[in-house]
Amino acid sequence: MMKAGISFMRINKIFVTHLHGDHFLGIPGLVQTISFSDRREPIYIYGPEGIAEAIDAVRGLGEYQLRFELIPVEMDGEFVLEEEKYRIRAVPVDHYIPTYGLVFEEKKRRTFLRERAEALGIPPGPLYSKLQRGEVVEFQGRTVHPDEVLGERKEGFRLVYSSDTRPLDVIKEASRGAVLIHDATFGEEYRDHAVETKHSTAAEAARVARDGGAKALYLYHISPRYKNGKELYEEAKKIFPEVTLAKDFMKVDMSRYKGGKR
Amino acid sequence: MMKAGISFMRINKIFVTHLHGDHFLGIPGLVQTISFSDRREPIYIYGPEGIAEAIDAVRGLGEYQLRFELIPVEMDGEFVLEEEKYRIRAVPVDHYIPTYGLVFEEKKRRTFLRERAEALGIPPGPLYSKLQRGEVVEFQGRTVHPDEVLGERKEGFRLVYSSDTRPLDVIKEASRGAVLIHDATFGEEYRDHAVETKHSTAAEAARVARDGGAKALYLYHISPRYKNGKELYEEAKKIFPEVTLAKDFMKVDMSRYKGGKR
Repeated sequence: MMKAGISFMRINKIFVTHLHGDHFLGIPGLVQTISFSDRREPIYIYGPEGIAEAIDAVRGLGEYQLRFELIPVEMDGEFVLEEEKYRIRAVPVDHYIPTYGLVFEEKKRRTFLRERAEALGIPPGPLYSKLQRGEVVEFQGRTVHPDEVLGERKEGFRLVYSSDTRPLDVIKEASRGAVLIHDATFGEEYRDHAVETKHSTAAEAARVARDGGAKALYLYHISPRYKNGKELYEEAKKIFPEVTLAKDFMKVDMSRYKGGKR
Repeated sequence: MMKAGISFMRINKIFVTHLHGDHFLGIPGLVQTISFSDRREPIYIYGPEGIAEAIDAVRGLGEYQLRFELIPVEMDGEFVLEEEKYRIRAVPVDHYIPTYGLVFEEKKRRTFLRERAEALGIPPGPLYSKLQRGEVVEFQGRTVHPDEVLGERKEGFRLVYSSDTRPLDVIKEASRGAVLIHDATFGEEYRDHAVETKHSTAAEAARVARDGGAKALYLYHISPRYKNGKELYEEAKKIFPEVTLAKDFMKVDMSRYKGGKR
């Protein structure tokens, strides 16, 4: 996050898909780094069975003072977090310990027509935010209805993260119109390994993306046995052309993937 | 370690200088990564008061199977580990939680005169190792004394790691003839900060190296407020010219620093 220039202070919810070190062990350092700031707002940590014990272990890991709460939330089956601007759905997937896939959905929003608000003489600031949220506003004795300054309702983007899993219908179905980040640990020659260790091959990931109607596929969790993952990319591309090998610090402009049929 | 090409399997002892995250939180990932191998040998973890609780927390951090023991050893005051080829001395230093500095000393060894062993007809292998260790060996009815194949006794190198600390006499005295890695969190303009947070300035580190008679000084723990640490390097160089800014993945040939007066 430091290298990517993303502030720790913006984090207030963390989803842990499963309790394997490579999906979880960034949290102790994150928590202790934040503890050096004057943050007071709690952080909610959503995770599978065992998350509360794991967060207890995080608290006991060395000498530091936490002035904010870490609040574990144990998910039990499908789980939905509704926020004003987005919805996160966590669905159980098929790995060898309890694991969740995540569906991040930006909610439909009406565009804010700034010129109209300005034409009405409304000063930028809190009144703009209220109108954007769809609230009626009183201004200089006049009632402004949000319809006066809001445009058409637009679809947001949808991002599906399979986490570590065998291919699954629930992920396929969630992928319609979405950007899919899918487990692609192995190539076809190691399909037995994928079955045994409860991971997916690149071709399997590509079939989920194709059959689900995803807009784009990002392959992740490439086994270190593949030097650069090019073979996996080629195997997937034959099945689903809109494929990319995910890389650390990769930036993707999600506005390219907004809207369209679901 | 992966990037540096160092095998995890070679680790059987870890010294934790203190329980701050930036000096300790590599251990959970290391332990869980090793747990994927078939290692069975224990790992000893030496640390200050609280190390046993911290290692308990490491054990509870997520879902994995450990097939080897993690054995915490709580140090209480000065501590010495004697091994065949080296000695590690841990000395309490002056930080705001219990913290140790480390003195790593390669023991004096007699050089093995391979040509002589060969001239005596001894085959390379276990007999060479025994002779190197100073043991008498029987070979084809003949007794070979180690003096026959060992040359002069040579000093090894000494490496002193201050850990996070204010400047201290105990570190200065250990530094004679040694390579010193010293806390240099701040420049002189933030000397007050250094005192308050129990760290050192680059100039203070340089004075420890100069007054202690170190062979070389490596500045570490540079505050992120310094973009590249060049100011700290310049401040130290005026006092002790054999100074280097430590960098991740830096390699130093310690054979340059063997022997000489102590």
